[in-house]
Amino acid sequence: MPALNPAFADIVELLTAVPDGDEAAVAAVRRRDAELTKPAGSLGRLEELVEFLARWQHRQTPRLENPMVTIFAGNHGVADQGVSAFPQEVTAQMVANFTNGGAAISQICGLHEINLRVFELALELPTGDITEEPALDDQMCAATIAYGMEAVAGKPDIIGLGEMGIGNTTIAAAIFAALYGGTGADWAGRGTGVDDAGYARKIAAIDRALALHQEGLDHPLAILARLGGREVAAMLGALIAARHQKVPVVIDGYVATAAAAIAHAVNPEAIDHCLFAHVTSEGAHARVLEHIGKAPLLDLGMRLGEGTGAALGVVLAKTALHLHTNMATFDSASVSRRLD
Amino acid sequence: MPALNPAFADIVELLTAVPDGDEAAVAAVRRRDAELTKPAGSLGRLEELVEFLARWQHRQTPRLENPMVTIFAGNHGVADQGVSAFPQEVTAQMVANFTNGGAAISQICGLHEINLRVFELALELPTGDITEEPALDDQMCAATIAYGMEAVAGKPDIIGLGEMGIGNTTIAAAIFAALYGGTGADWAGRGTGVDDAGYARKIAAIDRALALHQEGLDHPLAILARLGGREVAAMLGALIAARHQKVPVVIDGYVATAAAAIAHAVNPEAIDHCLFAHVTSEGAHARVLEHIGKAPLLDLGMRLGEGTGAALGVVLAKTALHLHTNMATFDSASVSRRLD
Repeated sequence: MPALNPAFADIVELLTAVPDGDEAAVAAVRRRDAELTKPAGSLGRLEELVEFLARWQHRQTPRLENPMVTIFAGNHGVADQGVSAFPQEVTAQMVANFTNGGAAISQICGLHEINLRVFELALELPTGDITEEPALDDQMCAATIAYGMEAVAGKPDIIGLGEMGIGNTTIAAAIFAALYGGTGADWAGRGTGVDDAGYARKIAAIDRALALHQEGLDHPLAILARLGGREVAAMLGALIAARHQKVPVVIDGYVATAAAAIAHAVNPEAIDHCLFAHVTSEGAHARVLEHIGKAPLLDLGMRLGEGTGAALGVVLAKTALHLHTNMATFDSASVSRRLD
Repeated sequence: MPALNPAFADIVELLTAVPDGDEAAVAAVRRRDAELTKPAGSLGRLEELVEFLARWQHRQTPRLENPMVTIFAGNHGVADQGVSAFPQEVTAQMVANFTNGGAAISQICGLHEINLRVFELALELPTGDITEEPALDDQMCAATIAYGMEAVAGKPDIIGLGEMGIGNTTIAAAIFAALYGGTGADWAGRGTGVDDAGYARKIAAIDRALALHQEGLDHPLAILARLGGREVAAMLGALIAARHQKVPVVIDGYVATAAAAIAHAVNPEAIDHCLFAHVTSEGAHARVLEHIGKAPLLDLGMRLGEGTGAALGVVLAKTALHLHTNMATFDSASVSRRLD
């Protein structure tokens, strides 16, 4: 077994030495919550969302004045294997659509006042076709993780991680198979809606990639480099930087979950600051969430990616914090307390 | 078996002769959806929400310019049996809190630009204690249903039905037991968080009421009158009027579902225009939703009532319609279509 490339040493360190959450901030949130004019616990996961913000922002009075959703866009050599219902040029076309306001994520963010940032990752240079070669060399993979760390430079209060890339559900399925065992058929879904023949090609491509790279899949970061996806590497970087810079993370769907799964495989505590916005109808997403021990917030049968589920998670977080901040207390509203 | 009181004849007729949904409007929505820059079906239940609006607004281009959430507030004689963690005066205190903007529902509606209307239902005259007498006489019950019909007079685009009333989860549990069989223990939950002794009193009160009224529970509207709840009767009226006036309905939680369950027991098709916003953590709510064949939109462990879940459902409907109305099409954004 080859040693892990030294290029990854810093990343492993950042994933291992993660700061704890701020339990004093959580306690302060719980004290205020107990005074609000509602039965204790009656807002369920909305209450948990406020605690989550306090814990990972390290703030007794959490803020969501600068919420952000990101889209990392990449292209994939494996698209040449006919694994998608759409041609590869759609990645760049959709990046233009995000910026022009025509995409679903643009409209969700516009309606709910969430900042949207798009990171193009060398769309003109698709990663290596994983059925024939590594997606990325280790240096490029490490550099892309580092690039992703820049996503939190604008000091968002919360960051949603989403992606766009024709072929990337094939990549994510291959990563899940490498991390958890099994074959392409165990993890792959229909992506953007590939037909039966394309779905068979997708499964076969994953299985060929797993066979080709089997000797090199001995560490989560090696899996990431071999099977790749620039957007997966960059989302991993964003997730890591967010933890160290006290920015709570909202993970979007199937492909974004692959970045979290890589982090989790290095250190399960490294994703404690990540909220999983929804379980999608793509492939074995629900089973991946079980592997990493996370309960999704929403189950709306969505499978679009581009951060749409993460944005809905941010909407719920904004709503929860608005309630926590602005509701009356029993005393201020002269509402009687419990009888016991 | 006594015949149904003639006071209810008009209500039965309105529940029986319900207008169908507008399938041509749904087809128009589906045609537009197929042109939007996303894979077909990838927005899951958000797409279904737009179809729901079109079907029950009878509009090919649905609107949500005047969304409304309502709270029907009532008091209950059964509160004297010590079934709640809070004293009965909290009903009126919370009505003031809704109006003053301090309640959870006030803040959700404020943030998301949803109109909120509160209907006080003779709070100074609690319904009869159902362990000793009928909640309402049939004439008063019918009059309260008719009063609830006025809620749609302001021509909302959508109406969320919520409620407030100390003791009303006891009432709802009794209605579910009367409709579906079983005892208080099968249907009751902790409501606002009653302790063990109060929970035992709650179950016993339901069982005494079921025994006392057993001869009079032979029709859904007779069940409503005997076991009552002015707010349940008024929500039933609002639900009926909404169907006939082409207003889609969003049902809130456990108690609001009791109104829908009464309608469903008269005619299952009478609640086709109702969206069930969430499954709550109260009692056997999930089992009630199975009885009426409805899949809730959200599962956030909430159990506050006062329309809070319904309001979140309206937020999702607003978001879904905003996407449908404003997203680019493949042609307008020059995005390539599927390969097959």
